[in-house]
Order: sequence, then structure tokens, then C-alpha cells
Amino acid sequence: MNLKDYIASIPDFPQEGVLFRDITPLMADGEAFHEACAYLINFAKEIGAQVVAGPESRGFIFGCPVAYELKIGFVPVRKPNKLPRKTISYKYDLEYGSNELHMHADSIKPGQKVLIIDDLLATGGTVEATIKMVEQLGGEVVGCAFLIELEALGGREKLKDYNVCALLKY
Amino acid sequence: MNLKDYIASIPDFPQEGVLFRDITPLMADGEAFHEACAYLINFAKEIGAQVVAGPESRGFIFGCPVAYELKIGFVPVRKPNKLPRKTISYKYDLEYGSNELHMHADSIKPGQKVLIIDDLLATGGTVEATIKMVEQLGGEVVGCAFLIELEALGGREKLKDYNVCALLKY
Repeated sequence: MNLKDYIASIPDFPQEGVLFRDITPLMADGEAFHEACAYLINFAKEIGAQVVAGPESRGFIFGCPVAYELKIGFVPVRKPNKLPRKTISYKYDLEYGSNELHMHADSIKPGQKVLIIDDLLATGGTVEATIKMVEQLGGEVVGCAFLIELEALGGREKLKDYNVCALLKY
Repeated sequence: MNLKDYIASIPDFPQEGVLFRDITPLMADGEAFHEACAYLINFAKEIGAQVVAGPESRGFIFGCPVAYELKIGFVPVRKPNKLPRKTISYKYDLEYGSNELHMHADSIKPGQKVLIIDDLLATGGTVEATIKMVEQLGGEVVGCAFLIELEALGGREKLKDYNVCALLKY
């Protein structure tokens, strides 16, 4: 099974000049979705992850099955005004536009081994923001895992001190 | 294990007078999250679901582990301007504010048995919008499953023609 067959490439979305990698055909196929999750689960096991953190909302798509399978917790990283208790936050620029992400201030236990999961590694802004917050809370980022990496955007450069894996590279 | 012990109740969030049920402590506990997902997986098996549809973004949290475990597809129901290909949409009022949801026009195959999963059943606006779209695409809604049901808000009334389950009732 070639999982790239299940990724649609959409020119000029969400704005001109961006080639959007659409993962919905992969998600819609039970075998393909399971295989993609299994790859991330295997990585999570290898690195000894104790909790998964995933940015809203596509980080939930792959992060939650990994947490479920390994019976570890999942910590949502969310946009402003979504988390009801005390949060910490981080602002950053992303591929198109800017963003601010929040985590509950008690969401990571000091010393906890955290795996960050998102669907896509582009410029790396989202994962970098998540790393900063996890570390501020005393967590140890033991890995960053993605379904897709857009190599030309250089996100991996930001992550050179971390254990990074990506299943599909473009 | 009493899963209600893992739900935090936050008064006046996101606005005055609303008692927000915060599921993040449940998600953060590996055993509790697994048990909640297992309940939904069992329901999905019983009703013979062939695909899971889940509204952005908390529908992804429980819907994706169910799809993963059963090796069936997951169809994201998303806010405007998130899905890159041709969509259908539905506008509705919700507990606080209003919302518009989209699904890819090719996301459900005619006759497919669809389970809709979300974290919370409140007034039922979100799940009703999802049902309308699934049925417009020719899918058969074989069930609607929630982690939490807020009984006083009467959402189940909107779903009286459907097979509904909720793990935790308030």
C-alpha cells in the first residue's frame, strides 16, 4: 500500500501559491488510516513516550489513536479561548498568517516524556511553539512525529535537537 | 473507574451562565481515555458502522481512535474554509452563538453506514447538522455517540429517530 496514493494535492489552497496536501482521502480509507497510525504508534513505542501532545485540530487526528493504542494520555494544544482552565501560551508565525497556541498549565507533569504529533511539518512553527510550551511546563520532548513533511520548507532545521520522524515526504 | 472523576466542571465558560464540562483531565489519563474510547468502539461494532464522521475539533478526539481500532474510515466535519475540495455545508444555531459546518461532497459513499461521534451532546445542533449532510450525501446514519450528554438541554429530542448513546450524563 502506497500511502501517497491517498494524499490529494490541491493547488492554491488556502491561498495562491500554496500546494495543499489533503489528507482526507487517507483518513477516509480504513486500511490506509490504520497503517498511518500504526507507523506513528511504532515510533511512540520506540522512544518511550508517556504522553502525546497534539495541536488543534489535525494533530488530534493522529495523536488520539496513538494515545488510545498505547494507553497513554493525550494533551490538546489549542487556539485561544478554547481551554477553560489556566493556560500558558505561545505566539508564532506560520506558513500563511500567524497563530497563538495554548496549553493547560497543569497538562504536563515535570519530567514526563512527551511525543508531539501533527499531521504536517511545514515551516515548523506550530511544533516549535508546542515544544516551547511543553518544556516550559517541565516536560521532556522525546520526539516529534508527522504524517507528512514538506522538506523544501525547512521545518526540520528548527527541530535539529529533537528526534523527528515523518512518514511521507514531499 | 468512575470516568466522571476525570471531568472538570468550570462555571461561566465560555460565557456567563454556562457550566463547561472539561474533558481534558480524562484525555490526560491513559486508562480513562482508553476506557472512554473502548465504550464508543463497542457501540460502533454493535451497530455495524462502516465509517465514522466527527465534527471539528473535539469530534476528532474520540472519533479517530474508534476509526483506527475498527479499521474503518474517518470523515472530518469542518468549519468553513478548512476543506480544500468541493463541499456541502449546513448552518445552524448552537448553545452559544452560531456555526456553519462543511463536509467534502465525496466524503460519504451512498448507502454507507455512518456513525457520528462527538464529545458532547448539548442542544444537538452540531450533530443534527452533521446528520443532514450525511443523509444529503446518501449515507445512512446508524448511530450517534457521545462521551457526555447534557440532558437538560434536550438534544436527544432532535435525535429521536436515531440510535443514540452517551457514556456520561449530567
